Amino acid sequence: MPTDLSVFQYQLTLSFLNLTTVLMAGAGLLLILLRPKVGPAYQAAVSLMIVVVLMAALYYLRIYNDWEAGYAFANGAYAPSGAPLNNAYRSADWIGTVPLILSAMVLVLDLGRIKSRSLVTRLAGSAVAMIATGFIGDQQGDLTLRALWGAIAMLPFFYIVFVLWGELSRVLKLETVAVQGLFNSLRWLLLVSWSVYPVVYALPLFGVNGANVTVAVQIGYSLADLSAKVAFGLLLYAIAVEKTNDYAQSSPRQAEASLKR
Amino acid sequence: MPTDLSVFQYQLTLSFLNLTTVLMAGAGLLLILLRPKVGPAYQAAVSLMIVVVLMAALYYLRIYNDWEAGYAFANGAYAPSGAPLNNAYRSADWIGTVPLILSAMVLVLDLGRIKSRSLVTRLAGSAVAMIATGFIGDQQGDLTLRALWGAIAMLPFFYIVFVLWGELSRVLKLETVAVQGLFNSLRWLLLVSWSVYPVVYALPLFGVNGANVTVAVQIGYSLADLSAKVAFGLLLYAIAVEKTNDYAQSSPRQAEASLKR
Repeated sequence: MPTDLSVFQYQLTLSFLNLTTVLMAGAGLLLILLRPKVGPAYQAAVSLMIVVVLMAALYYLRIYNDWEAGYAFANGAYAPSGAPLNNAYRSADWIGTVPLILSAMVLVLDLGRIKSRSLVTRLAGSAVAMIATGFIGDQQGDLTLRALWGAIAMLPFFYIVFVLWGELSRVLKLETVAVQGLFNSLRWLLLVSWSVYPVVYALPLFGVNGANVTVAVQIGYSLADLSAKVAFGLLLYAIAVEKTNDYAQSSPRQAEASLKR
Repeated sequence: MPTDLSVFQYQLTLSFLNLTTVLMAGAGLLLILLRPKVGPAYQAAVSLMIVVVLMAALYYLRIYNDWEAGYAFANGAYAPSGAPLNNAYRSADWIGTVPLILSAMVLVLDLGRIKSRSLVTRLAGSAVAMIATGFIGDQQGDLTLRALWGAIAMLPFFYIVFVLWGELSRVLKLETVAVQGLFNSLRWLLLVSWSVYPVVYALPLFGVNGANVTVAVQIGYSLADLSAKVAFGLLLYAIAVEKTNDYAQSSPRQAEASLKR
């Protein structure tokens, strides 16, 4: 149920939505400009992250407009205008971008073609199942049904985290110390930023609501999206550059082989 | 006749229209970024698909705006605002993009210049005839006239599917196993996604209407467009990359000859 927001609460939310839009667009442009520094083997991974952040920027434009239309200023505060907010935008963004994020991650792991394809299929399939069941749960007015669908959505969530953590641990041993450090940051970033989503989803289950929660949900989702897309994308780019340079410093024959992968 | 939509029905439709816009734009950007991986012989085919998805993204922006203007929120539901929805947008999109999609497909078949030109002329001409007659049928209030024009539109539809299926079967034998598999996916994708359009067109003939059908038509067209453009474009890109790499691995003389085609 939408409640009145103070001018500060309303402006803070819109500012965060706009900040997120601009940082997504900025990160996309930066990665387009820096992409030539990455070797051919990692071009596809960086390209996927460029598409992810720019698609998210388009979504945040819509979410911003939706919020503007959802509230009207009257008597010193912002009251719901009557036009319902469209929470499906976020799910629609995620269902398109999360499989691409997971694919980009697999591409920088250098697992070989067959292994990569199998991993991408399993992870992307799980991601779609996770987001679809979470979306269904989010539409339920009944809290028991919300909890039930949320629990179902957590199964593919844990599967993704478990598989990626395992793959990363195995592959890490083959990399240089610098790349190991970057991958370690990447997996913690993934775990922490992804953990925000179920927490935000669970808030109504604990009876937490009101104006402050409405604002906190928008800011929480914005920060989680910035971590899981912008920070993740820049870290993935750093890994790609590091690996490109490692191969360039190794023998020409090795470098050639690695570029062909 | 437009009917009232629930908040969920309205938001789901707008979310799908927006998701389609974003995925079309995202696919266009991804193909622009990945295009250098494709040899000179297939640059034109990939470029055509980039133009197709970006043109479709612009159309979906219009369809989204049209829907926003077509409904107004009142008493807990979305009622038709009185401004009629413009169904001509989809036909206008198709009449521009379908001939380009068919041309792109012919270009990756490597049929030689004269054969390709003749095939493109026949297929593009049939596509224009199919979409124009389908559009005329869609404007008819009278169901008998709708059925009649629909039947006329099915003639070029079957001609296109028949010719492409035949050409693909003939050419497939000359390709590597990997390319054969991709072409096989491509023709099934074409057949299945194109089949959605006549089904949606025929719904009013069977007396199927109401709010759920209004929503299903928009979602059905969006999914069909995503399959016929985004999935088709990415698959066509995969074929182009596979064929480029095949030629690069053959002798330099062969590779040079193939790139000149």
